[in-house]
Amino acid sequence: MKIYGDGNSGNCQKVKWVCDRLKLPYIWVGVDTLKHETRTASFLKLNSAGQVPVVEFDDGRTLAQSNAIIRYLARGSDLIPSDPFAAAKMDEWLFWEQYSHEPYIAVCRFQMVYLGKPASDLDPDKIKRGYAALARMEQQLAVTRFLVGDGFSLADVALLAYTRLAHQGGFHLDGYAALRRWIGEAERSLGLMPAP
Amino acid sequence: MKIYGDGNSGNCQKVKWVCDRLKLPYIWVGVDTLKHETRTASFLKLNSAGQVPVVEFDDGRTLAQSNAIIRYLARGSDLIPSDPFAAAKMDEWLFWEQYSHEPYIAVCRFQMVYLGKPASDLDPDKIKRGYAALARMEQQLAVTRFLVGDGFSLADVALLAYTRLAHQGGFHLDGYAALRRWIGEAERSLGLMPAP
Repeated sequence: MKIYGDGNSGNCQKVKWVCDRLKLPYIWVGVDTLKHETRTASFLKLNSAGQVPVVEFDDGRTLAQSNAIIRYLARGSDLIPSDPFAAAKMDEWLFWEQYSHEPYIAVCRFQMVYLGKPASDLDPDKIKRGYAALARMEQQLAVTRFLVGDGFSLADVALLAYTRLAHQGGFHLDGYAALRRWIGEAERSLGLMPAP
Repeated sequence: MKIYGDGNSGNCQKVKWVCDRLKLPYIWVGVDTLKHETRTASFLKLNSAGQVPVVEFDDGRTLAQSNAIIRYLARGSDLIPSDPFAAAKMDEWLFWEQYSHEPYIAVCRFQMVYLGKPASDLDPDKIKRGYAALARMEQQLAVTRFLVGDGFSLADVALLAYTRLAHQGGFHLDGYAALRRWIGEAERSLGLMPAP
């Protein structure tokens, strides 16, 4: 299996983490999104949406969308709750992540780290919605150890990707004690060093 | 089971359609998002994200995020491919819908229909990205009958919700023959009348 990914992208890191944790062998193929390598004709054959990550299996089949990929790769593992309702709550977090978290937390980080924008130039609405996302996670993590109860799941993998980098997008986690506790636990569950 | 939903929201209609198709009994509880009924204390207890749809089961458990809900309600049915890879391709469309389609197609429609914005005042970037989403669907539907091969699945349910209303957001489907063919087939699969 090949993973086409950009090492700077949290969405791509999710796929790497799941493979590493489940000991699934893969070849990492670096794709530089800043150099528009997702817009070449050969890349668009892998994913007509022009987005990383994409995985390509040995038979040539391809799969895109980070959360769809990790859901497929982790099927039957302890990263997906065996109880159908708990798995549905995991899915709720996965869809919420892409709609209500990533577009604010990840986008602010992208603009600061890769486009060199100062925090003062960020869109105030994105900042507000980013903090709302962090507050919602804090509310859950003040009650449960991980996002879906006591068990580490793909919900934690998906939300960890950009939450641990939120400070790079100008977000301050000082008032988010449960979130900071969870970031550490989730990083340790994946064998990761704390984010710089 | 109660479905808390706004009848004007495609995301909410997805849940209704799946229940109707699978003959799952439910009580529809109308929630008017324009009147900020998703921001009341009682609603936030159902879904701390303050979004419809939410389903509440008879034991009090709740589930949010339209695509997580339909994935849970349709488990074991013919709306989810039994082949794991085909199910993963369905998931790819579900996540793509929320990230690369709904924020453009549904948001333009919302601004025109509910906020009264003329098409000329829409954000050109949203229009461009909306057409890119439609073009990607057209590319797939020129090759396969439904989004995941020959079988009607939740991918079609999720994408139908706002694609059939795209014209209300100023999008013209004249050049999208496969997409128009698919809208008709998907509507018939769900027993729906064509959208006004």
